[in-house]
Amino acid sequence: MTQNEPIENMIQELRRGSVVLAVLALLQDEQYGYSVLKLLADHGLEVDQGTLYPLLRRLESQGLLESRWQLEESRPRRYYAISPEGRRVLDILRDEWAKIVAVLEPLLATSSEGTMPSDARHE
Amino acid sequence: MTQNEPIENMIQELRRGSVVLAVLALLQDEQYGYSVLKLLADHGLEVDQGTLYPLLRRLESQGLLESRWQLEESRPRRYYAISPEGRRVLDILRDEWAKIVAVLEPLLATSSEGTMPSDARHE
Repeated sequence: MTQNEPIENMIQELRRGSVVLAVLALLQDEQYGYSVLKLLADHGLEVDQGTLYPLLRRLESQGLLESRWQLEESRPRRYYAISPEGRRVLDILRDEWAKIVAVLEPLLATSSEGTMPSDARHE
Repeated sequence: MTQNEPIENMIQELRRGSVVLAVLALLQDEQYGYSVLKLLADHGLEVDQGTLYPLLRRLESQGLLESRWQLEESRPRRYYAISPEGRRVLDILRDEWAKIVAVLEPLLATSSEGTMPSDARHE
């Protein structure tokens, strides 16, 4: 069945930008990849490794994250943290996010009324 | 300067999914393309024609919108409205959206604390 594919894609599209925002916010505290994955899941955002790890590398190559190998532990791990440029971008994205949330809120409130035609509509 | 390109892309990425959601919500009332564009702008979501019109056609081809030509007016216009399947998808996306907003809220609240190291951090 390919019928649900557009919906899946739309959900992915809706989530994609927010994952970047979540990752930058989380990495204000230094974390290694797997711990980011777990923190995201703890917050209710399921992201798989095949999405997260390339994203971490991409954000690093864009200068938004910094990484270092931590060799003292039982197994070497690459730790990531937000860079000064990343903080700047995080601030911009957070403002943009707040704007999007504010824009959608009244639109989506109208839309639940729309499913009940007997309701009074205010416009 | 290509330095701001990643930020622009990230903002676009953040907005992309929300535009679909906004369009489906708006089209619970029948609208023609240009009026959708104006309503989005009225709500603070600037989307250009080159983005919106292909999106309307894509959503129609996915069965989420229905359209009809309205010929009685001074110039013929194509009117779009959400389909029954579109309403179903809108409900799913709205729930997903509420979940994403709820997930990001505490993460982004932490992130503004992060810029003030003197603040007490609770973790």
